[in-house]
Amino acid sequence: MSYVVREAKLCASQSTVPKSDRRMDFMLSWVHCILLSPVQVANNLMDMDQDPCKRLCFADGRRKVDYVLVYHYRKRSSVRGSPSQHRLSVISNGSYPLGVEGKDPEGGKDEPAEVVVDVGPPIPADGEKIMIREEFEGNLKDAGLEIERDKENKAHGHAFIRLHAPWQVLSREAEFLKIKVPTKKVRHSRLREEKGLAATMNEVWRKLNQPFQPKVPHQEQEHSRTKFLSHCFSRDKLHLYGAFYKYQPVDLIRKYFGEKIGLYFAWLGVYTQLLIPASVVGIIVFFYGWATVETNIPSQEMCDEDQNFTMCPLCDRACDYWHLSTACGTARASHLFDNPATVFFAIFMSLWAVMFLEYWKRRQISLNYSWDLTGMEEEEVRSHTNTVTLRYSILTSTGHEKLTWRDRLPGYLINISSILFMFGVTCSAVFSVIIYRITISALMAMSPDPEVKSNVRVTVTATAVIINLVVILILDEIYGMVAAWLTELEIPKTETDFEERLILKAFLLKFMNAYAPIFYVAFFKGRFAGHPGEYVYVFNDYRMEECAPGGCLIELCIQLSIIMLGKQLIQNNIFEIGIPKLKKLCRTLKDKERAPKEIVEQPGRRQQWHLDYDLEPFDGLTPEYMEMIIQFGFVSLFVASFPLAPLFALLNNVIEIRLDAKKFVTELRRPEAIRAKDIGIWYNILSGLGKFSVIINAFVISFTSDFIPRLVYQYMFSETGTMHGFINHTLSYFNVSNFKPGTVPSISSLGKDITFCRYKDYREPPWSSEPYQFSKQYWSILAARLGFVILFQNLVITMSMLVAWVIPDMPKNISEQLKKEKTLLVDVFLNEEKEKLQLIQSLFSRDLTQEQQEELNVSDQTSLPLHQTQPGPHPPTSSPMFLYHFEACLHANFKLQ
Amino acid sequence: MSYVVREAKLCASQSTVPKSDRRMDFMLSWVHCILLSPVQVANNLMDMDQDPCKRLCFADGRRKVDYVLVYHYRKRSSVRGSPSQHRLSVISNGSYPLGVEGKDPEGGKDEPAEVVVDVGPPIPADGEKIMIREEFEGNLKDAGLEIERDKENKAHGHAFIRLHAPWQVLSREAEFLKIKVPTKKVRHSRLREEKGLAATMNEVWRKLNQPFQPKVPHQEQEHSRTKFLSHCFSRDKLHLYGAFYKYQPVDLIRKYFGEKIGLYFAWLGVYTQLLIPASVVGIIVFFYGWATVETNIPSQEMCDEDQNFTMCPLCDRACDYWHLSTACGTARASHLFDNPATVFFAIFMSLWAVMFLEYWKRRQISLNYSWDLTGMEEEEVRSHTNTVTLRYSILTSTGHEKLTWRDRLPGYLINISSILFMFGVTCSAVFSVIIYRITISALMAMSPDPEVKSNVRVTVTATAVIINLVVILILDEIYGMVAAWLTELEIPKTETDFEERLILKAFLLKFMNAYAPIFYVAFFKGRFAGHPGEYVYVFNDYRMEECAPGGCLIELCIQLSIIMLGKQLIQNNIFEIGIPKLKKLCRTLKDKERAPKEIVEQPGRRQQWHLDYDLEPFDGLTPEYMEMIIQFGFVSLFVASFPLAPLFALLNNVIEIRLDAKKFVTELRRPEAIRAKDIGIWYNILSGLGKFSVIINAFVISFTSDFIPRLVYQYMFSETGTMHGFINHTLSYFNVSNFKPGTVPSISSLGKDITFCRYKDYREPPWSSEPYQFSKQYWSILAARLGFVILFQNLVITMSMLVAWVIPDMPKNISEQLKKEKTLLVDVFLNEEKEKLQLIQSLFSRDLTQEQQEELNVSDQTSLPLHQTQPGPHPPTSSPMFLYHFEACLHANFKLQ
Repeated sequence: MSYVVREAKLCASQSTVPKSDRRMDFMLSWVHCILLSPVQVANNLMDMDQDPCKRLCFADGRRKVDYVLVYHYRKRSSVRGSPSQHRLSVISNGSYPLGVEGKDPEGGKDEPAEVVVDVGPPIPADGEKIMIREEFEGNLKDAGLEIERDKENKAHGHAFIRLHAPWQVLSREAEFLKIKVPTKKVRHSRLREEKGLAATMNEVWRKLNQPFQPKVPHQEQEHSRTKFLSHCFSRDKLHLYGAFYKYQPVDLIRKYFGEKIGLYFAWLGVYTQLLIPASVVGIIVFFYGWATVETNIPSQEMCDEDQNFTMCPLCDRACDYWHLSTACGTARASHLFDNPATVFFAIFMSLWAVMFLEYWKRRQISLNYSWDLTGMEEEEVRSHTNTVTLRYSILTSTGHEKLTWRDRLPGYLINISSILFMFGVTCSAVFSVIIYRITISALMAMSPDPEVKSNVRVTVTATAVIINLVVILILDEIYGMVAAWLTELEIPKTETDFEERLILKAFLLKFMNAYAPIFYVAFFKGRFAGHPGEYVYVFNDYRMEECAPGGCLIELCIQLSIIMLGKQLIQNNIFEIGIPKLKKLCRTLKDKERAPKEIVEQPGRRQQWHLDYDLEPFDGLTPEYMEMIIQFGFVSLFVASFPLAPLFALLNNVIEIRLDAKKFVTELRRPEAIRAKDIGIWYNILSGLGKFSVIINAFVISFTSDFIPRLVYQYMFSETGTMHGFINHTLSYFNVSNFKPGTVPSISSLGKDITFCRYKDYREPPWSSEPYQFSKQYWSILAARLGFVILFQNLVITMSMLVAWVIPDMPKNISEQLKKEKTLLVDVFLNEEKEKLQLIQSLFSRDLTQEQQEELNVSDQTSLPLHQTQPGPHPPTSSPMFLYHFEACLHANFKLQ
Repeated sequence: MSYVVREAKLCASQSTVPKSDRRMDFMLSWVHCILLSPVQVANNLMDMDQDPCKRLCFADGRRKVDYVLVYHYRKRSSVRGSPSQHRLSVISNGSYPLGVEGKDPEGGKDEPAEVVVDVGPPIPADGEKIMIREEFEGNLKDAGLEIERDKENKAHGHAFIRLHAPWQVLSREAEFLKIKVPTKKVRHSRLREEKGLAATMNEVWRKLNQPFQPKVPHQEQEHSRTKFLSHCFSRDKLHLYGAFYKYQPVDLIRKYFGEKIGLYFAWLGVYTQLLIPASVVGIIVFFYGWATVETNIPSQEMCDEDQNFTMCPLCDRACDYWHLSTACGTARASHLFDNPATVFFAIFMSLWAVMFLEYWKRRQISLNYSWDLTGMEEEEVRSHTNTVTLRYSILTSTGHEKLTWRDRLPGYLINISSILFMFGVTCSAVFSVIIYRITISALMAMSPDPEVKSNVRVTVTATAVIINLVVILILDEIYGMVAAWLTELEIPKTETDFEERLILKAFLLKFMNAYAPIFYVAFFKGRFAGHPGEYVYVFNDYRMEECAPGGCLIELCIQLSIIMLGKQLIQNNIFEIGIPKLKKLCRTLKDKERAPKEIVEQPGRRQQWHLDYDLEPFDGLTPEYMEMIIQFGFVSLFVASFPLAPLFALLNNVIEIRLDAKKFVTELRRPEAIRAKDIGIWYNILSGLGKFSVIINAFVISFTSDFIPRLVYQYMFSETGTMHGFINHTLSYFNVSNFKPGTVPSISSLGKDITFCRYKDYREPPWSSEPYQFSKQYWSILAARLGFVILFQNLVITMSMLVAWVIPDMPKNISEQLKKEKTLLVDVFLNEEKEKLQLIQSLFSRDLTQEQQEELNVSDQTSLPLHQTQPGPHPPTSSPMFLYHFEACLHANFKLQ
């Protein structure tokens, strides 16, 4: 026993492994860590009394296959002499730890499913490998595991070693990990029966909910049924994930996949559920805009052809003066997203984000309670093997020394510079698209073809956004790899540490990648264009782009919706579903090519593990979470400009949640079950995004939308107190005689009698003492915008804190139940204790021989020094003191269960 | 045993007490809760092997007095017939729970030191009381406590009942509360020895630190010495608190007073310590201002008599025009506090607040570790008796029913309305002082005496601030009582709950009380005064007050320093030290008056408990914390206007920390030891204040100081790019012909040739198209001010988050040590286990009779249902299974210790 336990500690502190044993210890500790991951132990503990399914057992039909190891072998006479041929891989019931795939220096790229155990130079010869494998298997046997191997000997191919963990091993590990097992006492889930109205309401709710409940056995029967379900193979359960509108069977997911994946699906469920009210409010806001567009004075004024505002040309020479009423369409469209309800919606969504996080906290605690994780300590989660560190310690000779900051400095420097470089890449990608837009629209405007000319804006915007999208998708993949590479350079200590750093980096890069073009449109576009007579030029020739006449908000809206929808459709469907299928196809083809005979020869003899081996390995939840977090950004960050974002997210997630489930169940090998209490760093990222969204929305409302100028006009400048005259107020005058030579429209259909043209800005008119300087209106509106940002931000922050403070972290029924359980436990303890005490007392006083008593005292004193320090007025007699401790330990024992 | 345990549960859920037993149960459970508060148990456990001090023991000289109960009695023949005479009170070693004093409906006001046990109508007759007392004592005996009473029988007076908790009771309770007791293995405090430079540095630091270390026994010897210290009476230890410049003996404080008070002193220590760097930086900033005042162009310009700005009169008719150069003094003083370094200091202090909180978090975890509180669960802390609820349940007949929202609604309504009312009271107090200032200065200005006239501002400001201070001090006391009364109306469930609600309310009220006048000066004063020709009047006659010519900042500075210093000096010294002494004097006089004979008769027979009874009872840490938190507000909230605040706070605290210690040790009865892991809601309040301070400082810098106008002038309006001409820029023109009739100065020494006078504002000149409207400068400066607020707030928030994220919550050496201890524990367990296992195995296999084996199995099955569910391929034999569990329990047992 002590052997395996020592191995378990190895998982936590790899650096203590002496060099000679390293390879062996690695195998054992690693297998140990995976094999006896807590959930599996717990499941197995409860599955013991079941009739095992026949095809997943050893040849004796009794012992269950808990784990399968696989290795490639070949006869000495094999034609292919690659030294990396003979490898021990682990498949089925669990995948290999994160970060191994594709990082092995010797090959493995053609067989991504394999974990190469014999990493590091020098590569052992075939004979040595067999020795190592035998020693490895021997150690597994020593640890109490039972092994079964294939009897037939093929020339070369995959050999499967099945492992069985007997009851003793499992219970030992369960004890060691302090896993909670249900006691006989049935918990009373309902603390009190509701009466009267509450009961009726509950009943109605239950009935309404009925069609959404998944077709899984009822909670009460769970224990007897799930034992079967968590065992038999995955494909059988596909029907459970049949209907998209039903609740998820989260408990079953947890039973089969472990807590970590269970939490992911539960989180996704909560998120999707909470998207429903957000979508409803978003639709209402949208329809409010739709309903009020006819009565909206600014858009009426823009569409009113009588007002006849002659606008300055949109490009030099090639463009003509134009009438504002021609931009009527965008003005109306703009109102759909830019109306007073949007401000309310932005506040609502900021609070929604807080509510979501609080609600999730509660759900997490509920799940922790019902999954018996309440007592789980932090360190237990973190003690998984860190393959990367291990690899490092194997590859370099300094493995067992502590890394100083000198060792780490180069890594950190490369990190920082790489991230800065990536930032630069993203920014230049955005800038390139801007240049593309400017040049193409200038070129198209100069085209003699009127057809081309009239479609300038549509063509340019559409192509530019698509280019943006493609760039984002490509950079996304690259950044994922860069983040992994950079994190490895840091040599983090534990796997959790590795994962957190990786996630943080990947998030930073991918977030920036996805949002940079959107930020540009929201806050920068059109603000550096200058004003008539003093336009800003890039490359001396091309005028900096301005927003469409309808305002920047509508452009932001288009950009946002295309990137969001495009990213979701392409990444989720094509990448997530298509690429794994493609990979599998490739692998199958390769395998066939290599050993076509065996597969053809033995079609009937293929066991379940052969089939499982053909599946794709699982590579972590990070991509799934990342996708959702980026989506959460779309929903929360710019929601002020696009109230329909929650709806699109909801539609995507309803499909996504089931596609993910299907993928996990049928297309991937069963992932390693990992215990986890929470969703880790993702929670922090979510909470950070929520906070960031407050300030972003404040800026979108006050700077991108026309909300503040309208308010200021109505209450400060309007003579009637209404919005009439707003459009005139927003347009400044320009004296066409002030145009620089060569920028005057060459052909003008609006005649030569124009003296002043108008442009959208708050500047002094040509006849003032400071022509074309910012006017008093500009400054007062700027002050109002900034004041609104302060007001909005602090109001929302205060409200969020209030919401977070009012909603208790722990649901009331859970905390009451916990208290009740504690009381129950104490009662049980008190009742049992006395009987035992009496029994053992009589036992000891009658049967203990003198030597044993002495022996007992000695061992007692070394282990329980408390007694020694008690010579005072209450000298303890040895027997009662021992009994006292036995008593204490019984108490503790009860706690244990 | 089960009896006391059931009583312990009573502490948590009082409502289950049947009505008839209620009074008795109250006593027992209450005594139980107080008596066996964890620290005392732990201390006693370790003190058992000590020679008890003679005078604190029972008559036998062996059994230690752990607790003293006191009651007033009188012979039947006593002249005074009040039915509330015969009461059982609890004194010494512990105080009574919070919220009891002075709330008893029947008398008790003259004897605030007593807890009236027999509350509630009908008041039992004397005979019944004796019966109750005897039953009470009987129950104490049943619970295993030993009782000693005075033998002599006086006519009337105080009777002291001494209680002794024997070893069995203590160990039983320690076990029940899962108190950690040091095992024999010595922990290695130093994980690694530093080498080279680090070691030298450490040694230097240690030597530098030497004089500041308190003269207490060294850590290594602590165990042997503190046992004595935590026992013998408090006065003996006064010398420990002799020197103000030394570190506090926090461990000893904790040993004697319990964790809660220990944490308070530790917190105070950390706060005071961190005030040192803040003071240093504050002094530097102040001296920077002092050094640059000569070279500061704006104050030079103000003092320059050649500039000759003729200012508009400061009051109607009575005041004359004046030259700006006469305000030279305040301008220079203002520069001391209003210079660019202030901005840096405000940012520094915001980060300082975050650092303080983070540092405290770390210290708290260190203390938790070294005080063995790491495993303490939340609920254990919260299960103290709630006297208030209990009183409620005794006083009303609905005690054992659950309170619905209908029962609570009136309480909440009264709460909200009272708090709003108090807000109103505070605001009207502030407003009254404003009215006082306005009227008095107007009246004094009209006075014919030139002496009076010249001193207007000084006199008015000084008297007003003193009035403010007095109002604050009076309202502070009232608000404390109101908060307590309001919290009782809410009927909170647990004592922690009660305390938190009380603190929150008291904090809200007291905070507002202390800061309302400061907020007024900082953000409102002078902003509603109007401008020449259109002044704002209150009561039709009095002009709204303006800031002094030097700016509002200097007034804020004066207000802040006087309130801060005055509050600290008066509240800390007079109230905290003087009033307890006064109270004690009163009580002594009363006691003497009541029973002068006995005290005179038996002067030599007074035991330690008689002396203790004369001390004041302890009434919680709330006032101590509150004082410090309000001070923290002065240090953090308005630090931008008063960089010397940290210095004043530091000076106060250095004294306060020792005065508090002296008070606790020598002037109060020994408080009940309460286990606590943290400082509770105070942390949240501190963190809230820290966040609030960011936005307040942002507003002070941008709106109260002249920082932004100067910047804007320099970079936007100045023609030379320097500050020259700034004063002229800030002054607007007023055409004296626009004065309203009757407001023109009646006697003007400056002659009749004045056409324009100047005033401090950004308004259009009389010759513009919109005379006296806000100018473009006004709006641009407003925009800059608001922009600065956004920038400052978000910058500081981001930096704070970064600081909080970079500093790990748990010090590295603690987390490493925890890991090491765990490993050690597992090792010990593994070594011990095998021996025990073998021993017990042999014992069982040899000596267990058939009946016992069966019996064991039966009891085993009821308690450990795990075995039953294992009929599968691994049928457990009864003996090894039991052994397995014994093994587990040994493991758990080790954890327990």
